[in-house]
Amino acid sequence: MFSVYSVVKGCCVNAEIVAIGTELLLGQNLDTNSSWLAQQLALLGIDLFAFQTVGDNEKRIEAALKLACERSQFVITTGGLGPTVDDVTRKVAGRLAQKQLVYNETIAKQIEEVFTKAGKPCPKVNLNQAFIPQGATLIPNAMGTAPGFIVKIGKNQLACLPGVPFEMKAMFENTLRPLLKTLSPSGTVIKSRVFRTTGISESLLNEKILDLFEKSTNPTVAVLAHADGVDIRLTAKAPSDAEANNLLDGLGKTIMTRVPNFIYGLDQDNLETSVGRMLMTRQMTVAVAESCTGGLISHRITQVPGSSAYFLAGWAVYSNRAKSASLGVDPKLIEGKGAVSAQVAEELARNAREKSGANIGISTTGIAGPTGGTPEKPVGLVFVGLSDEQKTQSLEFRFSGNRETIKMKASQAALELLRRHCLKLPLKD
Amino acid sequence: MFSVYSVVKGCCVNAEIVAIGTELLLGQNLDTNSSWLAQQLALLGIDLFAFQTVGDNEKRIEAALKLACERSQFVITTGGLGPTVDDVTRKVAGRLAQKQLVYNETIAKQIEEVFTKAGKPCPKVNLNQAFIPQGATLIPNAMGTAPGFIVKIGKNQLACLPGVPFEMKAMFENTLRPLLKTLSPSGTVIKSRVFRTTGISESLLNEKILDLFEKSTNPTVAVLAHADGVDIRLTAKAPSDAEANNLLDGLGKTIMTRVPNFIYGLDQDNLETSVGRMLMTRQMTVAVAESCTGGLISHRITQVPGSSAYFLAGWAVYSNRAKSASLGVDPKLIEGKGAVSAQVAEELARNAREKSGANIGISTTGIAGPTGGTPEKPVGLVFVGLSDEQKTQSLEFRFSGNRETIKMKASQAALELLRRHCLKLPLKD
Repeated sequence: MFSVYSVVKGCCVNAEIVAIGTELLLGQNLDTNSSWLAQQLALLGIDLFAFQTVGDNEKRIEAALKLACERSQFVITTGGLGPTVDDVTRKVAGRLAQKQLVYNETIAKQIEEVFTKAGKPCPKVNLNQAFIPQGATLIPNAMGTAPGFIVKIGKNQLACLPGVPFEMKAMFENTLRPLLKTLSPSGTVIKSRVFRTTGISESLLNEKILDLFEKSTNPTVAVLAHADGVDIRLTAKAPSDAEANNLLDGLGKTIMTRVPNFIYGLDQDNLETSVGRMLMTRQMTVAVAESCTGGLISHRITQVPGSSAYFLAGWAVYSNRAKSASLGVDPKLIEGKGAVSAQVAEELARNAREKSGANIGISTTGIAGPTGGTPEKPVGLVFVGLSDEQKTQSLEFRFSGNRETIKMKASQAALELLRRHCLKLPLKD
Repeated sequence: MFSVYSVVKGCCVNAEIVAIGTELLLGQNLDTNSSWLAQQLALLGIDLFAFQTVGDNEKRIEAALKLACERSQFVITTGGLGPTVDDVTRKVAGRLAQKQLVYNETIAKQIEEVFTKAGKPCPKVNLNQAFIPQGATLIPNAMGTAPGFIVKIGKNQLACLPGVPFEMKAMFENTLRPLLKTLSPSGTVIKSRVFRTTGISESLLNEKILDLFEKSTNPTVAVLAHADGVDIRLTAKAPSDAEANNLLDGLGKTIMTRVPNFIYGLDQDNLETSVGRMLMTRQMTVAVAESCTGGLISHRITQVPGSSAYFLAGWAVYSNRAKSASLGVDPKLIEGKGAVSAQVAEELARNAREKSGANIGISTTGIAGPTGGTPEKPVGLVFVGLSDEQKTQSLEFRFSGNRETIKMKASQAALELLRRHCLKLPLKD
């Protein structure tokens, strides 16, 4: 076994990413792996020279990897490690490293275990994944059957990871990141901090921080719009993690004073994780009644580990019958005001709270489209309700976009209403 | 002015895409342009060799474009055409083409007009965008200030487009596509068909079609695993659309006989659109009771426009209290068998059906993790239930992955159970 450290330690490391897969070159799948890896490498202060993308073609993979290993000290590939005949990354890596592929018993056992756990026999073809280049360093895969590995190509390193994003990410985090961290001890650190906002438009946000764009060069300031809100991204470059953090803290404080009410979280936060933390620290519980969002809010809340502590129940009351039968909304109210109305939103929130025994009930009712709109109640009209023991209220929104976007925006508005409500509640031990 | 046609007409064209921008290499922006262009080129029957991505660095852009223009007949770049000093694509293209950059009055006027229309003075820096290599063919930009152009590099062509997606797309559609179309007039069409499967592992699927991989060269066969199932992709190359379809139909029939039970749809289908069509044509309605999936199934079903015709109600009964209070599951059953049990899954499905008045009820109960597992009931254990007037049944699964993946796989298993049930029901007018 060779040491990865011996090769690149001490100097400034540069890297390159090669994504492998014919589906990428046909435009059938979007490569999100390279971008994610690039972020991780930037955080480690590692300079990235280039991405390459090639199809499942032995000759072209070999040419791409040869070029990459000639010019970059650390090359990471994603894809082509599956069990089937068109997965040829192992083979090409072995050839470039001038090492035979050898059958690794440890890997074979791990692969068989994955199938045993699932109560299925292990297909013979999967054991192809136990062949790796002789002397390679193993990168274990806790989430799937394709292990990764690192081999030496000339003076440089080649790390091969699978293309399935959650497997690749876990392997990078558990094995590659700790290793790469040791490679740039005195390097430059590039660090970003993202302030996540919702409920404010990109142009209004822009106006509020326009001067910072122009005068701030380190950190730099960028604004990025998504369907669920607008991010402000600060990027600092410094000789150390601590100094980068100082730069980010300084400008971050200014950002917070410019848009205090719209920032709901930082970096990887989303509204459901932020709201989850707030409900926990306030010992509050919530129930959800969803018409137009159809289960999306409950789904988002329960994506957060530990959400069973504060999420009691959800109803997807899509039909009028369900609104009345499951949540006791008066059919006369629906007939009189319409299912899409402030009154029905409030009734849904109140009844969800009462029926579940939760402290807070939230609700949505609206027209997600593409059909079902009228001049008075167009596609995109959404009412969001919130009810606690003191008060029941609702807000009206008019969202643009397709069905998926309108559902997302409506769920975001309901969670934001819940967040603002939580801000007013006392913290508990 | 040279003619683009003279160079590549008649022969089989291959292409390459180079994305330019430091923000891409930092992972701050996801490159969706390359994937979109790849789709367009595939439809034109143009073979794509590779993508490259480089930062805003003159030397590296030059190296990437040199390599691309040596090995590919038609190279498309995106990005680096802005007005500022870090936009160097124009300069590098000129140098490679051995042509001076010249000031183009027509472009300058168009740029000034863009600002006049917006009621703003034209910043001087924007007129940098009026410099293009002498003799280049212009690609007008109706949506912004950065025009594109095509130059000859050696025997091959280099087309430079801006990085802003909607500008780039309009310019491709208006200028590049018509041009590329003429390059392969007797041209080749590349067409794909994707067979979407669920409930069968990548390796088992592989075994069933292994011989097709090896003996079929047109269409080619590829297998691609996702969290929600495995795709089989056939890709045909033919002189015309009709002939490509014939090839796909032929091999498609064979595929259908090999894995008849696992294919739920084609191309852009997903399980919720397939199931939705089936429920519609059978005039059946459904209700959903979700414990571990927490609303995801209801959300997926209601992503489909028109789902209000067959989706009656959903319950996210996350807590034991909600299972009993909302859906009448006997607390003694939960205590005796556990909330994660076949019996509770069946009770949830039955009660969801009865309470909503739907024809079919489906349910999930399981342990999504990361905590809450025991040796007897580990993380990933999921029961899926289905109930109709005749019968109530359940299936047990053991899924691997993180919380998000387990929720996704459980929702997929429940929708697949529903699909298989629908297959047995008669079609109605």
